[in-house]
Amino acid sequence: MKKVSIGIDIGGTNTILGIVDGKGEIIARYNMASETDTDYSIYMDKLGDAIEAMIKSCSDEIQVAGIGVGAPNGNYYNGTIEFAPNLNFEGVVPVVDHLKTRFDYKVIVLTNDANAAAMGEMMYGGAKGMNDFIMITLGTGVGSGIVANGELIYGHDGFAGEIGHTIVDPGGRECGCGRRGCLETYTSAPGIKRTVAELLSTMNDPSKLRDVSYNELSAKMIDAEARKGDMIALEAFDYTGETLGLKLSDAVAYTSPEAIFLFGGLAQAGELIFGPTKKYMEQYLLAIYKGKVKLLPSELPPGEAAILGASALVWKEFEK
Amino acid sequence: MKKVSIGIDIGGTNTILGIVDGKGEIIARYNMASETDTDYSIYMDKLGDAIEAMIKSCSDEIQVAGIGVGAPNGNYYNGTIEFAPNLNFEGVVPVVDHLKTRFDYKVIVLTNDANAAAMGEMMYGGAKGMNDFIMITLGTGVGSGIVANGELIYGHDGFAGEIGHTIVDPGGRECGCGRRGCLETYTSAPGIKRTVAELLSTMNDPSKLRDVSYNELSAKMIDAEARKGDMIALEAFDYTGETLGLKLSDAVAYTSPEAIFLFGGLAQAGELIFGPTKKYMEQYLLAIYKGKVKLLPSELPPGEAAILGASALVWKEFEK
Repeated sequence: MKKVSIGIDIGGTNTILGIVDGKGEIIARYNMASETDTDYSIYMDKLGDAIEAMIKSCSDEIQVAGIGVGAPNGNYYNGTIEFAPNLNFEGVVPVVDHLKTRFDYKVIVLTNDANAAAMGEMMYGGAKGMNDFIMITLGTGVGSGIVANGELIYGHDGFAGEIGHTIVDPGGRECGCGRRGCLETYTSAPGIKRTVAELLSTMNDPSKLRDVSYNELSAKMIDAEARKGDMIALEAFDYTGETLGLKLSDAVAYTSPEAIFLFGGLAQAGELIFGPTKKYMEQYLLAIYKGKVKLLPSELPPGEAAILGASALVWKEFEK
Repeated sequence: MKKVSIGIDIGGTNTILGIVDGKGEIIARYNMASETDTDYSIYMDKLGDAIEAMIKSCSDEIQVAGIGVGAPNGNYYNGTIEFAPNLNFEGVVPVVDHLKTRFDYKVIVLTNDANAAAMGEMMYGGAKGMNDFIMITLGTGVGSGIVANGELIYGHDGFAGEIGHTIVDPGGRECGCGRRGCLETYTSAPGIKRTVAELLSTMNDPSKLRDVSYNELSAKMIDAEARKGDMIALEAFDYTGETLGLKLSDAVAYTSPEAIFLFGGLAQAGELIFGPTKKYMEQYLLAIYKGKVKLLPSELPPGEAAILGASALVWKEFEK
């Protein structure tokens, strides 16, 4: 009988479920659409059905230790998703309580998606054996999971680790959070689009990006043009790296991590984003930190990271 | 026989020593000048003499559990003071190793002064029972001690918690650390002087501060004039509070603390600094944090905080 945990990643579009063994092998997977309805109970019922179906589909004999969930605005202490801007559910969704009415596993836990990714990196990825590191997710938004003294920092209310919403410029770009100038507005996939739009106005260089509407423009397109030597695309990556490097130098001054991991769509641009981010981070770092902090790509497979991280939450609970 | 620990606060001008019992009562004190010599061994010998003299002077029968030291740029892991800009010693000072050659207490520990203050606040002050809080010291510099999950964050190298050196404006004021625009250049005692100098250039209001040279100007003077309604002094506090509030809103996004404590000379300006800092922090906070984070004055007596904090380090080691 194999001891496994169930990892669930609730995203804006899809919910991905996996059954994961103690070594981080995914032995079953299941995808479902995240509910577009604002009534979460319909979604939670479907999610329960999916969990049961996935367990049944498993050919191995398994013993489920628990369920771990990663979700935007997930609150570890309350087991809730609270006012997540990218999900359709309104207000507070009591995910853990709902799952507990249907499953009687000892551990059913939830945290935000970036914290789950950090936990996955610590258990199965490049952060194995590290006590102090930061996970930065560069996707539609910018998330973060901060590990210090070997523990995820949840904060007094369960909402710690929102580096994407630290402020680069209080008079800067409008953010989905209602404020201005958050890091997320510069270093997410939509952020680099905004930077290209700005550079189209300030630079004179010819660029294929001048033929694409703002809505058609994507981070992937900017990546492709940068690789062909497009000056505006290259400058956009440089500016993104400078902004990220600046704020990561702040991050180091908080928890002095051994490493910072970059994860998510924009991190897959590789040297285009790692190069300038590393350069500017070093430039902006306080002298005592210079040359000491590794900037690394996540070692988790993009399609599996979230499930692995969510399932790792379960094992972490048993350690306590 | 009373069990006590020895707390030592090494500052730029003075070194203060105290014998502290488990309840935080200081039962003996000793002051000595911090050495102006660059050779630290002379200073360390004098410090050893002072410790012995203080123990002898103690009328109670005591059993010393250990020595705790708080010092600028103090490194917890190495027990060293490393390249402290406000001390005269050059390079790395092996404080703990030196003390160990002379005293054979089980615990001899060192950390930076703001971490020591945080520890004191947790053990004897307003942070009793809190697992997540931040201590900010507003003095000649700006220091910080960050507690998360009930533990001080030291980081992988022992240098975590330098919020005073997070960057407000990468093109801003020259900082003693060699970079530009650090928080410390705005919200320390010298920082508010710099702000007054700037406001003398941008504002037209008459002010007694126009009759004082930059070198004569002090944070106390600005405080006194603000209380008399001086517009430039009041604006200087408002700007200081806005800058501090902005960066504290970032701090909350890192560790989501229950409270932030302000400590040190500038914090003694009371409502003049707490008022605007609180107002702007709330304004800049991400919605999920608004109204949840207390901004509090330290409850430690200014003259005793450092000794208490340093001595508390010893008890904390025994808890481990």
